[in-house]
Amino acid sequence: MPPELSSRGAFFCPMNKPEPKPSRWDKLGESILTRTRIFDLRTAHYRHPVRNAERDFYVVHSPDWVNVIALTPDHQLVLVRQFRFGVDDFSIEIPGGVMDLGEEPVAAGLRELREETGYAGQNARIIGRVHSNPAILSNACHFVFVELAVRSEALQWDTDEEIEVVTAPVDEVFAMAHSRQITHSLVLDALFYFWPYWLEIKKG
Amino acid sequence: MPPELSSRGAFFCPMNKPEPKPSRWDKLGESILTRTRIFDLRTAHYRHPVRNAERDFYVVHSPDWVNVIALTPDHQLVLVRQFRFGVDDFSIEIPGGVMDLGEEPVAAGLRELREETGYAGQNARIIGRVHSNPAILSNACHFVFVELAVRSEALQWDTDEEIEVVTAPVDEVFAMAHSRQITHSLVLDALFYFWPYWLEIKKG
Repeated sequence: MPPELSSRGAFFCPMNKPEPKPSRWDKLGESILTRTRIFDLRTAHYRHPVRNAERDFYVVHSPDWVNVIALTPDHQLVLVRQFRFGVDDFSIEIPGGVMDLGEEPVAAGLRELREETGYAGQNARIIGRVHSNPAILSNACHFVFVELAVRSEALQWDTDEEIEVVTAPVDEVFAMAHSRQITHSLVLDALFYFWPYWLEIKKG
Repeated sequence: MPPELSSRGAFFCPMNKPEPKPSRWDKLGESILTRTRIFDLRTAHYRHPVRNAERDFYVVHSPDWVNVIALTPDHQLVLVRQFRFGVDDFSIEIPGGVMDLGEEPVAAGLRELREETGYAGQNARIIGRVHSNPAILSNACHFVFVELAVRSEALQWDTDEEIEVVTAPVDEVFAMAHSRQITHSLVLDALFYFWPYWLEIKKG
């Protein structure tokens, strides 16, 4: 289990010459510039509360995403290898995808795991959550950990999905991340959150 | 230093019922839908080599980014707190930004560190690199590690930048990430890559 972490807020060490605190900009409105199948590009109109400057900023809006750490009974992780259009190349990742409207992250994670890989498991729970990119993306990515994952279901790929389902021992997956065979930022985040769980599991 | 990692390719455990391998789609062309100050939204036109289907996919193009792990002589990390328009809220991050055209990642990291925080350091080197999001973003984010970072330079914020510069002990920063006070996906990636270096540094 992850270490007990203090939530005390007094972690900041004041600098010798403190700058003024950053202001919270006021969002006055936003409009959709372009809609695509998987995200909207919007302009958000903001006013700075002190300087009174008004500016437009660009934001990519998408539903939240979910990524799944699925651990098999023999301590391998379920991986997927796909062609990815963003990088025009193949990418080795963990199962995941876009959450449906109103869907809870754990349910979405189990659904994506089942549809993409045919695996189902037990004791599914959230182990982390990030903002995909606070500067330009509005959404979050949730990380679900599933144990005792076994292949038991039929695949249900989306249109244009072609997925190679593979497994690898957990320590090998961490090595793949450190050696840059795995390069997806969100997969490394999942491994970051999974690390303390894995240390406990290895201890037995 | 990070563990010696094998680069053997035979990590895949074949499944009982292997699916056909995913195909590499052929990119036939792309066009810019929308240009913003920080990225372009493009449509890329692809053909599947086997099914002969043609489809448009949306890709956000941006220059590469760089993020910096700056370690002070007393083993604190330099952090920045900013208002972020993507999430319409404040975010605690490490220094970083967009690389200039033709700029090398280490130079870009040192420049962003200096401009955003006034810190300069020594022994700067790359410790990792991710794809920001292989599905929809074309770019990479490079991670630079700088040691003996001290505040010695004047700040040079971009227009609309207001940055609170803070430091915190390294283990506290890891705890902030696990307790979700730090939520930026790329900052967690930086900490993922930094972990084996930190273990060595702590050993002395």
